[in-house]
Amino acid sequence: MAREITGFSNPLVKRVRSLREKKYRKAEGLFIAEGLRILTEAREEGVLPEMLFHAGSTHPLASALIAAMEAAGGDVIETTPDILSKISGKDNAQAVVGVYRDRLAPLETLDRGKADIWIVAQSLRDPGNLGTILRTGDAVGAGGLILIDDCVDPFSVESVRASMGALFTQSITQARWGDFVAWLRAGPGELIGTSLKAARDYQEPHYGSPCFLLVGNEAQGLPESYEAECDLLVKMPMLGKADSLNAAVATAVMAYELLNQKRRG
Amino acid sequence: MAREITGFSNPLVKRVRSLREKKYRKAEGLFIAEGLRILTEAREEGVLPEMLFHAGSTHPLASALIAAMEAAGGDVIETTPDILSKISGKDNAQAVVGVYRDRLAPLETLDRGKADIWIVAQSLRDPGNLGTILRTGDAVGAGGLILIDDCVDPFSVESVRASMGALFTQSITQARWGDFVAWLRAGPGELIGTSLKAARDYQEPHYGSPCFLLVGNEAQGLPESYEAECDLLVKMPMLGKADSLNAAVATAVMAYELLNQKRRG
Repeated sequence: MAREITGFSNPLVKRVRSLREKKYRKAEGLFIAEGLRILTEAREEGVLPEMLFHAGSTHPLASALIAAMEAAGGDVIETTPDILSKISGKDNAQAVVGVYRDRLAPLETLDRGKADIWIVAQSLRDPGNLGTILRTGDAVGAGGLILIDDCVDPFSVESVRASMGALFTQSITQARWGDFVAWLRAGPGELIGTSLKAARDYQEPHYGSPCFLLVGNEAQGLPESYEAECDLLVKMPMLGKADSLNAAVATAVMAYELLNQKRRG
Repeated sequence: MAREITGFSNPLVKRVRSLREKKYRKAEGLFIAEGLRILTEAREEGVLPEMLFHAGSTHPLASALIAAMEAAGGDVIETTPDILSKISGKDNAQAVVGVYRDRLAPLETLDRGKADIWIVAQSLRDPGNLGTILRTGDAVGAGGLILIDDCVDPFSVESVRASMGALFTQSITQARWGDFVAWLRAGPGELIGTSLKAARDYQEPHYGSPCFLLVGNEAQGLPESYEAECDLLVKMPMLGKADSLNAAVATAVMAYELLNQKRRG
């Protein structure tokens, strides 16, 4: 269904704009993704938005998105650049904005055998870090991201943007720690944490498969009881004055070590 | 000199608050850093602010900062939590705010032999990435960060915050590409770039010393002529749908590979 909206006070514009706030995302089960690159990555994964907003772009990727939406009977809304800017909250609006159904994979549906690496984040507070970790997960062929405790919303505009489309290629699961540990211990898998207190260098162990890489909160790191649950606690060399890396950076350095070990066979 | 300020309209409060904007930082040659952790890291490096604002904190690290400022004859200003919030632009003010003289090291003053790894960033646009790269540089024992072309201001509040104090432990240099290349080629050093077009895996080469790790702009990567100047062009494995990593993540994965090679000797 194709239609046009040109009024700022149109209720649909207001509704979509409200999805920039977590409470409305939660209530509707919807979130916003912006830009040809991210929406195209989603389309290539077979994921189309519930609603597609554009401002008459003639870019071939926009045309491909519109065609895919029309073929699927989706809702395509042509609007003005000003209204697109209003929806996206940015001065320079993207060519397209999509409204997607949120995508949470329950713990019990995960197939742990499908990947060697899984990333588990605990109380991650920064949406940019969360999106960046999804992007890294995609790069290392991770199975998905499991969010423990009070993590920031993975469907925030900032997280979606930082993920650069990996939000659509990585599965995302929310779980309580106890439920995660019970699920983990019911099958194969090694839980690996990084800790300032660890004695072992991160390049020393031979990691098993699948690996669950546990990343702690940006400011506090992992709670002690979570560290105690880990099968391996390792540390990265820190030669300078600082005692920690950015959470997304630490995750990537560990994840590439795991990947490099798998590549060596 | 210790003094008290309790008025929001005090000219000094306005002046310090203006340092949140680049044009005022540039005009004054000053920048703001916030929080006990970052200011203490600076103090431990022997760097004190020109002015220290606090709101009567009794934290031992605040007392140590105030004592160091007083011993050095520095300007210590006690103010209210509200005014500290106004200066820092955040609802929850930090315990201390310091105003520092900016710290740029001219290219010709760099001692390339003092470190095995140097990081060179080209047209980096995100202040969080810049600060995170400084933090990673500190961790891998880099000599410093060299900013090429139109990089974001390293002294922005967001960059300083993301650096977690590494702004005070890493040297920062701004240079034009031509000047940098001339300086680089006048001494030992290997220029290493990452590129989607590279054929060599990043773990394959044996890297020389010192290594200059060249990081490109977040959206465009490196210009072709810059890639052509590199002694080595390498790529990281990317198993997923995406074709690139976050710039700070890619820098860290490469920097830890360089460090790991040095550690193996």
